[in-house]
Amino acid sequence: MKYRFNLRTWLLVALMALPLLTNDLAIGQEAAPAAEAAPAAEEAGPPSAYSDEAYIASEGYATFAVNNLWICIAAALVFIMHLGFATVESGLSQSKNTVNILFKNVWIVTTGILLYAFWGFNSMYPGEGNGFFAMGSWFGGDLNDPALTTAEYNAGYTWWGDFLFQAMFAATAATIVSGAVAERVKLTSFMIYAVLLVGIAYPISGYWKWGGGWLNERGLYDFAGSSVVHAFGGFAALAAVLILGPRKGKYTAEGIKPIVGHSMPLATIGVLILWLGWFGFNGGSALSADPKAVSFALVTTCLAAAAGAVGSIFTSWILLKKPDLSMALNGILAGLVGITAGADTVSEFNAILIGVIAGAIVVGSILFFDKLKIDDPVGAISVHGVCGMWGTIAVGIFSFSPDHSLGTQILGTVAISIFAFVFSFAVFFILKLVMGVRVSEEEEAEGLDVAEHGAPAYHIS
Amino acid sequence: MKYRFNLRTWLLVALMALPLLTNDLAIGQEAAPAAEAAPAAEEAGPPSAYSDEAYIASEGYATFAVNNLWICIAAALVFIMHLGFATVESGLSQSKNTVNILFKNVWIVTTGILLYAFWGFNSMYPGEGNGFFAMGSWFGGDLNDPALTTAEYNAGYTWWGDFLFQAMFAATAATIVSGAVAERVKLTSFMIYAVLLVGIAYPISGYWKWGGGWLNERGLYDFAGSSVVHAFGGFAALAAVLILGPRKGKYTAEGIKPIVGHSMPLATIGVLILWLGWFGFNGGSALSADPKAVSFALVTTCLAAAAGAVGSIFTSWILLKKPDLSMALNGILAGLVGITAGADTVSEFNAILIGVIAGAIVVGSILFFDKLKIDDPVGAISVHGVCGMWGTIAVGIFSFSPDHSLGTQILGTVAISIFAFVFSFAVFFILKLVMGVRVSEEEEAEGLDVAEHGAPAYHIS
Amino acid sequence: MKYRFNLRTWLLVALMALPLLTNDLAIGQEAAPAAEAAPAAEEAGPPSAYSDEAYIASEGYATFAVNNLWICIAAALVFIMHLGFATVESGLSQSKNTVNILFKNVWIVTTGILLYAFWGFNSMYPGEGNGFFAMGSWFGGDLNDPALTTAEYNAGYTWWGDFLFQAMFAATAATIVSGAVAERVKLTSFMIYAVLLVGIAYPISGYWKWGGGWLNERGLYDFAGSSVVHAFGGFAALAAVLILGPRKGKYTAEGIKPIVGHSMPLATIGVLILWLGWFGFNGGSALSADPKAVSFALVTTCLAAAAGAVGSIFTSWILLKKPDLSMALNGILAGLVGITAGADTVSEFNAILIGVIAGAIVVGSILFFDKLKIDDPVGAISVHGVCGMWGTIAVGIFSFSPDHSLGTQILGTVAISIFAFVFSFAVFFILKLVMGVRVSEEEEAEGLDVAEHGAPAYHIS
Repeated sequence: MKYRFNLRTWLLVALMALPLLTNDLAIGQEAAPAAEAAPAAEEAGPPSAYSDEAYIASEGYATFAVNNLWICIAAALVFIMHLGFATVESGLSQSKNTVNILFKNVWIVTTGILLYAFWGFNSMYPGEGNGFFAMGSWFGGDLNDPALTTAEYNAGYTWWGDFLFQAMFAATAATIVSGAVAERVKLTSFMIYAVLLVGIAYPISGYWKWGGGWLNERGLYDFAGSSVVHAFGGFAALAAVLILGPRKGKYTAEGIKPIVGHSMPLATIGVLILWLGWFGFNGGSALSADPKAVSFALVTTCLAAAAGAVGSIFTSWILLKKPDLSMALNGILAGLVGITAGADTVSEFNAILIGVIAGAIVVGSILFFDKLKIDDPVGAISVHGVCGMWGTIAVGIFSFSPDHSLGTQILGTVAISIFAFVFSFAVFFILKLVMGVRVSEEEEAEGLDVAEHGAPAYHIS
Repeated sequence: MKYRFNLRTWLLVALMALPLLTNDLAIGQEAAPAAEAAPAAEEAGPPSAYSDEAYIASEGYATFAVNNLWICIAAALVFIMHLGFATVESGLSQSKNTVNILFKNVWIVTTGILLYAFWGFNSMYPGEGNGFFAMGSWFGGDLNDPALTTAEYNAGYTWWGDFLFQAMFAATAATIVSGAVAERVKLTSFMIYAVLLVGIAYPISGYWKWGGGWLNERGLYDFAGSSVVHAFGGFAALAAVLILGPRKGKYTAEGIKPIVGHSMPLATIGVLILWLGWFGFNGGSALSADPKAVSFALVTTCLAAAAGAVGSIFTSWILLKKPDLSMALNGILAGLVGITAGADTVSEFNAILIGVIAGAIVVGSILFFDKLKIDDPVGAISVHGVCGMWGTIAVGIFSFSPDHSLGTQILGTVAISIFAFVFSFAVFFILKLVMGVRVSEEEEAEGLDVAEHGAPAYHIS
Repeated sequence: MKYRFNLRTWLLVALMALPLLTNDLAIGQEAAPAAEAAPAAEEAGPPSAYSDEAYIASEGYATFAVNNLWICIAAALVFIMHLGFATVESGLSQSKNTVNILFKNVWIVTTGILLYAFWGFNSMYPGEGNGFFAMGSWFGGDLNDPALTTAEYNAGYTWWGDFLFQAMFAATAATIVSGAVAERVKLTSFMIYAVLLVGIAYPISGYWKWGGGWLNERGLYDFAGSSVVHAFGGFAALAAVLILGPRKGKYTAEGIKPIVGHSMPLATIGVLILWLGWFGFNGGSALSADPKAVSFALVTTCLAAAAGAVGSIFTSWILLKKPDLSMALNGILAGLVGITAGADTVSEFNAILIGVIAGAIVVGSILFFDKLKIDDPVGAISVHGVCGMWGTIAVGIFSFSPDHSLGTQILGTVAISIFAFVFSFAVFFILKLVMGVRVSEEEEAEGLDVAEHGAPAYHIS
């Protein structure tokens, strides 16, 4: 009853936007900061996505085109990471909660992109004339404005390439949480939580570093987001899991009862797609197609991923006495998260070291959180939170540059992690009070697919 | 018995092509229109795929290279949509018909590419000297001819880049039908039908718009094929389904009995891969790597996809009283199909509106066709047919350009849809008379995998 | 017991590398051949992955950027082929051996990349001052050295783009073997075998052709590796299978008992991902983004893949009297392997012929090896070994260029195949003597997932 009311209200709000419809889209052009900077006396006709000949013939056009193309392709690669998350999370969970996990992931990526359009982008990158309270402004830009489609805006991309790449990043944080709270979180509560995390929290701490805020001024280095994205998501997940509690039957009087994933092919598909996506996540973070920057960052990225797997395979083999596929997969992710902060500023050899250590850390961390009865079905807190911290700190140890100080790196990753933890804790706590965050014991036992969605994921006869 | 004879005949025909083999491939060079335009006094040696230094050093080479590269990558992305279709169609069908669906999809993409090489490309884009009756001519071009590898042919791509991108589009139409007729269509009949649809019908109506035919002259705007590809496929599917009839047990005296899909992970993989593929479908339809055109079209595409999911999630939640994953997935596809006609000519905000409306439409349409007892297991008629129409019409409402008239958009999408419907109806009807289009009731009950292919899709122990 | 000792030793070795850690990474810079060529008086500061303005403004920068970008994207596409192999191999095997196959594939791609960094790259491409005994040298290059990031190194890519692309190729060979020995090979033995095959054997015969060795001097043509990669992997697989013997219960007194795959969707996902990856495998082998070379090679590649499917569908339908999906899938791969040697040097029409013939060959070959009781669960010997030979020989028949002689093509593919066979046989034979290469009959019956990894792949309730 309650939800139906909410849904109708939301739909009404959406429909109320209809009258705003005009072909020149006043709402967008008023709000976008860059549009204000545009010369008033533009050509009179309607905007068009197509370039004129002068633009194509202008100096540096080819370089600008290859740069922007790479940012767009990198955005596509980061987009497909959402399929990677969806499959690795569902593969490592029980089959009875598969539809629920997939639904959450679809919700996160789709609302994440929309929220980033409505206010995230302008909040995280407030530009010249706007403070953080540009928050709430619509991103849409003016196609007639050359300042959005040339190196005047950025040498590496247009306004739209920039938005697209950043929007794909934004939703990642909530996806990380999704895996950690799987199998017992209440769907509607999580949907609201995800909207707030992606819509409000991520642009704030993102602004601290990438938008030019205080952590950037302090000299924090975070190339592609070991802290901004991964530690943020991991420690938000930790807070949520602490409030939510473990799955029923996991921690019993007789000890820890492992709840194994339902499909290792699905989990493997997920991790290898995530690795593919990281070509865009890290490679695109060069923010241009510069041959030196892109190819070097991709090499360190792949070496760290490979080393992460090797590190976790051997560590888990020693500790668990068997070759564990899920640990190998988490080792790849650990290596990737670990190299993300410094992919362009550590040597190839040190990239391997960062990866091996991340692979060892992730195994220890997963076992450690399990000992503490902090139940994280897919290991997201360890992979993203702990290895995100490690990656940020590793820049302070291994960086080429004397500008990167260990102290600042620690400060930065701790600051972002605490912020994510506190925001997540507060929101999840309020949601718990207001509407509850956990399904009933019966629903958990039955599985969220039937309980929440009325349909199981599989009918294989 | 009958089929073996057919197969042998076909194989003989293929083998008869063997004597045509010569290293200079006379067949290709005679037929290709561009080859005729080539100067007779080319260099004497054999052709080579490698460029000479003068070509590489020529003005605009870098721009041409990035443009053509993007078309090739976009072709790869459209190619992988065939995996998306294969998985979403099989995921939303019963497990006993999975091999059959996968086999059909392999057949469609492979024969589709070959048919497009043998006559589709030259039929759809007949060029200067050829009328539509260039039909039947082989596409192969002359590597020695600079008119095929420079901006003289097109500023955005070589002859081969052009072919590759268009060939990947061509097979899509039949794939759309494949989902709608799943679970009861006779394999061999469908194989012949798909060949005729891709080989003959698609290039005809494709020519009407993209090849410079009458709909293009009338001013129809269809950026990447809401009508040329999607409405075409969707209404071809409607005709086939009308002749084929619903699956046994779907519409009973007691009402509609839903036949649920067998694997929601497979369906989700499919839809997210399709979204990835749409980066190429729409982004590549800029027909160059122009920064403004490509990045803008990708932003509207992703916003519409996201909005489509949100629109369908809320609409279906209200109507069906539960969060329905398959509706969310179809909402993504609806948004993508909806934005395809106007991705470069509507504002970001209107892209969201087009998507939200498409997401709402697709839910209503699926329920509507079900009420009419028109059985479409995957919702292909609604997603591609209805939303393809909506997307084309939306250009008439929301376009930047005063040149795009609502009337023409309606005319265009109706004309293409009727053509597809009539062609499909005629072919399917004749096939029904000649060899039947539906498996027996026993085969349908047993499942097509065992009945037609002699092997089930799964052996999970 | 034995393995734990080994693992600890290995881990110690890895940890011993820690003291080598310095920010200027002496180990790398000493070893890399190009670093020696670098002028001594470079700028003093630490290296940085970022380019200076002079570099970006230099003539030909845009062309170099698009070339290098394509190599990096192609590397990503070849990387994702490892997901294709993992899924096609597990899909075509029994569900009880799925974790084992996935684990092997993760092992191969991750150690493959690391081995290629530690010595493979410098061994295969020894450059000017090094002989083959550069083997063992670390690849890491000097970011300050313009000779690694400009056309001075190569017009098509930087040192790192080159490494990345080649490293992704290297692991492929062992992956091919993985499928053929599936379901009965002992994990630790295979892990050691894979390390030796990728680390030692592949760079040796790779050097013969692509590194400028004797087969290159003899005029062998192998565009993207029909022999260097595929025949190599296929004949290494043949040797391993001969030593290993068939799976229990496959060849009985009553005849051949087919052991069918456990998931055809997984197999189909694998093959279509492999096809996607081949856009990078063959397209990237143009070694630049040259419009003519790339788009032509991609067209022949896709035509051959499509023709391979058609060839195998009809051949298997005639021979097996049913439309066989796994044969259709292997036909696609056969076409792809077949065109790989000559994708840039045969006409479009002949690409189709090469593909059709490969599709027919692969069906015959799979049936032939089965008659010989050579048990290859996924058909890897036929797809990669036999069709790799066919593709190399086809260059001698169909090439544009009079420089490509049939005799040399036969010599080359036979030489590489024999080398791979002998190396593989020797290593596998020694491993059999020392530690055994096959699991016990009980473990084989139980399935390797539980026997070796202690966990099944699926828990679908």
